[in-house]
Amino acid sequence: MTTIAVVGSGSWGTALGMVLADNGHDVRMWARRADQIEEMNTKKTNEKYLPEVTLPETMSGFTSLEEAVQPVEVVVLAVPVKAIREETKKLLEVSNRPLTIIHVSKGIEPGTQKRVSEMIEEEANGHANLHSVVVLSGPSHAEEVSRRQPTTVTVSSTNLESAQYAQDLFMNQNFRVYTHSDLVGVELGGALKNIIALVCGVTNGLGYGDNTKAAIMTRGLAEITRMGVKLGADPLTFSGLSGLGDLIVTCTSVHSRNFRAGRLIGQGLSLDDVLEQMGMAVEGVRTTQAAFEMANRFEVEMPITSAIYHVLFNGIKPEDAAGELMGRVKKHEEEKLTD
Amino acid sequence: MTTIAVVGSGSWGTALGMVLADNGHDVRMWARRADQIEEMNTKKTNEKYLPEVTLPETMSGFTSLEEAVQPVEVVVLAVPVKAIREETKKLLEVSNRPLTIIHVSKGIEPGTQKRVSEMIEEEANGHANLHSVVVLSGPSHAEEVSRRQPTTVTVSSTNLESAQYAQDLFMNQNFRVYTHSDLVGVELGGALKNIIALVCGVTNGLGYGDNTKAAIMTRGLAEITRMGVKLGADPLTFSGLSGLGDLIVTCTSVHSRNFRAGRLIGQGLSLDDVLEQMGMAVEGVRTTQAAFEMANRFEVEMPITSAIYHVLFNGIKPEDAAGELMGRVKKHEEEKLTD
Repeated sequence: MTTIAVVGSGSWGTALGMVLADNGHDVRMWARRADQIEEMNTKKTNEKYLPEVTLPETMSGFTSLEEAVQPVEVVVLAVPVKAIREETKKLLEVSNRPLTIIHVSKGIEPGTQKRVSEMIEEEANGHANLHSVVVLSGPSHAEEVSRRQPTTVTVSSTNLESAQYAQDLFMNQNFRVYTHSDLVGVELGGALKNIIALVCGVTNGLGYGDNTKAAIMTRGLAEITRMGVKLGADPLTFSGLSGLGDLIVTCTSVHSRNFRAGRLIGQGLSLDDVLEQMGMAVEGVRTTQAAFEMANRFEVEMPITSAIYHVLFNGIKPEDAAGELMGRVKKHEEEKLTD
Repeated sequence: MTTIAVVGSGSWGTALGMVLADNGHDVRMWARRADQIEEMNTKKTNEKYLPEVTLPETMSGFTSLEEAVQPVEVVVLAVPVKAIREETKKLLEVSNRPLTIIHVSKGIEPGTQKRVSEMIEEEANGHANLHSVVVLSGPSHAEEVSRRQPTTVTVSSTNLESAQYAQDLFMNQNFRVYTHSDLVGVELGGALKNIIALVCGVTNGLGYGDNTKAAIMTRGLAEITRMGVKLGADPLTFSGLSGLGDLIVTCTSVHSRNFRAGRLIGQGLSLDDVLEQMGMAVEGVRTTQAAFEMANRFEVEMPITSAIYHVLFNGIKPEDAAGELMGRVKKHEEEKLTD
């Protein structure tokens, strides 16, 4: 039995806390909102984020970060990418133990173009008590994990022992955890696939069907892989659970926020209206900005990313961008996939 | 303007005939059933296969194969894999011109383990008037093609000029056609993905969600690729439209027969009952048999194919097979994907 803190009590943090509690661990959830923590402690529910789910008895909630993390050496960091730096800084301030941080966020930071593990390492610079950083990623809707449906994910770290430790904490019959040595590829796959999900949502909002979506996903994975290889990732990683697997679940599922946000864009709403209507982080939007910067900086051809970037930020009409994407002039598929 | 015969007037043959007619070609459809041909000629509909679609004026129907193919040098062969040999033989008997056969069927023959182009070449043995064989494959539900929704497909042939010729015949604004040099990979991808679609249907029928489906599709593509590489295909082909693209559309779409058949199996129906209920060819069933033979013959590990084979033909319960698949003991994802 290990005592573990989960920082962030949205749907994904809560579902992962349930997996850990199912495995016999003592789970300390943290959230900012007092009414949410009280609901989790007294009613054993988290209605806003995971409706119709009963939380295990061994999960308890805290509004004080210090109290939540005080006894632990393992933290699951489940906050939006935007909040990663701030929460990491606070975490290291209030903890006086060597921490293994398992992060479960999917995005890239605009401006710096850093992956989440890089952001954490940067913020920890100077703090002796960051032991290691692990990423957990893969095709895993929180709603299904909370209902204990069969799910597979990948963990990766520059510290293999820490990845194996995270694997042991989470692994059970319904939640299969695989270690992977390619940290860069695992993080990039999870982050960049949100861009493709936005685009699939847009084509859906425009009224296009499954044939179009499959084409976008296929070409999307190719351009994600191209960028990943440029950054030193193993191309095979993008064919695995954290790449292709997560792409599939995000682009084809009713649960995906990025897909739903894209659909509203395709239906003609402005980005501001969409973000207001969603009310939750839509990681793909900021990641689109970061990936567009990366494509320019590293001179990697990313036509799908470029198309959605101009739709989101430069007022290009979705139908014009989609039409141009589908009508690209190349005639050999091999050309297209390896460019 | 070219005169082209389409042999087989199911949903796919009809949709492809419509694309050709849209491109200004004179399209001669063949079907066995006189009432269907009469409906196509007089009412310009094919209600059973493509409800709510109006056929172009330049499409005409024939019940005599000889009459249909008499003036043509290009035939689109759109019949179930089971009928490929017989229809090829008849075609070559009734035609006295050098034929380019564009086949659009996805399967492998049990017993011989031949791909469709190999079956056609074998039947043509001795006939001087087979000019070449082309395959057209990719993520393309007939219903969406008939509604002129943006669709992308691949054509391949051992004869590059014939592939380019087929590309020129079909290419238009909504139907993008790419040539590909890897005939083996293109045919195998289209055939083997139906097995994975059956399995995704089974897990759906068992009540599992999108996380499970994404895991099955990811591992499924890995095992298809392993087999393809063993048979001389380029592994990249399986990440393209005719591999990954077609896998996505078949496993995640409401239109897929193989997915629907699998779902009925998952819900507890026997194979015989399912095939009777479907009333149309479910190519994945026979291809499962062929792929299981191939996995043994070439000693390629195909755990998903093996699981569905035993469910379909050896009375193993779907829930037992699925449980075993999800609980496989490997701990590193790389191991799993490259084994």
